[in-house]
Amino acid sequence: MHVTKAIITAAGPAQAHLPLQTVVDRTGAPRSALELILEDIFSAGIQHIAIVISPGYEEHYRRAAQPNVGQLEFFEQDHPRGYGDALLRAQPFTESEPFLHLVSDHLYVSRNEKSCAAQLLEVAQREGCPMSAIQPTRENQLGQFGAIGGSPVARSSGLFEVAAVLEKPTPTIAEQQLIVAGQRAGHYLCLFGMHVLTPQIFDILGEGLSKLPNGKSLNLSDALHALAQSNRYLATELNGVRYNIGEKYGLLIAQLAIALSGKERDYVLTQLVELLAHR
Amino acid sequence: MHVTKAIITAAGPAQAHLPLQTVVDRTGAPRSALELILEDIFSAGIQHIAIVISPGYEEHYRRAAQPNVGQLEFFEQDHPRGYGDALLRAQPFTESEPFLHLVSDHLYVSRNEKSCAAQLLEVAQREGCPMSAIQPTRENQLGQFGAIGGSPVARSSGLFEVAAVLEKPTPTIAEQQLIVAGQRAGHYLCLFGMHVLTPQIFDILGEGLSKLPNGKSLNLSDALHALAQSNRYLATELNGVRYNIGEKYGLLIAQLAIALSGKERDYVLTQLVELLAHR
Repeated sequence: MHVTKAIITAAGPAQAHLPLQTVVDRTGAPRSALELILEDIFSAGIQHIAIVISPGYEEHYRRAAQPNVGQLEFFEQDHPRGYGDALLRAQPFTESEPFLHLVSDHLYVSRNEKSCAAQLLEVAQREGCPMSAIQPTRENQLGQFGAIGGSPVARSSGLFEVAAVLEKPTPTIAEQQLIVAGQRAGHYLCLFGMHVLTPQIFDILGEGLSKLPNGKSLNLSDALHALAQSNRYLATELNGVRYNIGEKYGLLIAQLAIALSGKERDYVLTQLVELLAHR
Repeated sequence: MHVTKAIITAAGPAQAHLPLQTVVDRTGAPRSALELILEDIFSAGIQHIAIVISPGYEEHYRRAAQPNVGQLEFFEQDHPRGYGDALLRAQPFTESEPFLHLVSDHLYVSRNEKSCAAQLLEVAQREGCPMSAIQPTRENQLGQFGAIGGSPVARSSGLFEVAAVLEKPTPTIAEQQLIVAGQRAGHYLCLFGMHVLTPQIFDILGEGLSKLPNGKSLNLSDALHALAQSNRYLATELNGVRYNIGEKYGLLIAQLAIALSGKERDYVLTQLVELLAHR
């Protein structure tokens, strides 16, 4: 499996402005969140990127993506029918090749010298099958993420054969269906917002869309669940953390995590301690 | 002295986008920074507000100020010649009355039930003279602020007769000219970004502008310094803190300070401690 393309979905009405937010990066330079996401992808060796956007946002995204706008292709999601539908809009872009997929409302902080996207791509290309990145996540955050059930792959670390994917499960459902051997109590393997997928996902999404009742939204988790029933489909932990910037204090916490992992760590930590000392 | 009007200066090219940033307020609601600044002013009983903006920004500010846009009057600063010049553009709005003045790149967190603007107004109206809010500020932050020199007013706490105002002094200059009795070592009384001023400031600014060499910017500190030479002009500490959101991590620290002073304090503190524990 060789992956040369990536798709970012950024069309959700509540999320459209998030990639346009300013974030100070690890080196101390103010950037757009979109630039940080693109950088993650570029550092994995991928140069061609499709972004699915809400109509009217292309100009804003072009400005926020400078100077990398030449490597982007935009797809507008008019008459939106959910996240799965958004991904489906970029199907022509993939030309039946496997692709990397990232959401636009997460930021990623790697704990080693490889970006999260590069780490995921390495595992996916080695295993040669669809692969979702996951992060052990506390039960009280299940409402924010899709979560997987499955079993550890023998003789490997942090790699799981996926048996089920449920979108934002309740703690009760998660406890019944998504317990994975070896996890800490009260923690589930939740999606990281980053996947390597094969064109098969479009067949599943297309079928889902054709059967979708009016007024309902197509999510990706259902399609991933279907994928897991018919295919070898793995999930892997990465040496890094994802921050959901769509959450109320998400951008705050993401910015802090980036700053504390970067070269201005001491400066920010000093300000933080001063702030806490004065309260 | 009775103050019924306020002027916000927001025309600096590097600052124009700051009031449009999203901040989660003390109650947990996402608001624009502009709304928070307006709220500070309204809570001081002031209903008429002029905003000096960079040409082209009115629509953006109108959106960010909803639902209070009816109480705003906009002045565009074309051919800008600095902060002092920006303030001067709103002179017709004041109709020779004293006014409250706030910068647009600071956010304020009061430590009691009165907003910072309300606290300042109370002192200014009691003393009946121009009044700048100040905050004891560490020497290493002198490069961000104007700073005052002067002497404590007898039989009052946190009130100073201003003798000098210097814009962004070096630590050496500050040590020579701005030591104020009773301050902690290495701390200076820096401007808070909030003043009550009388129409006299416009005479001083107007004169400064007429003598300003081409290509130079008119600042407010020089005009305040001139005011101090001819008038009773005081400075007061408030029970609150200002956060300069124009600084690189300024919005981050301001957001944290607001969150930690608000009703979602425990939630944010928990996330913060988790973040620090995982690094």
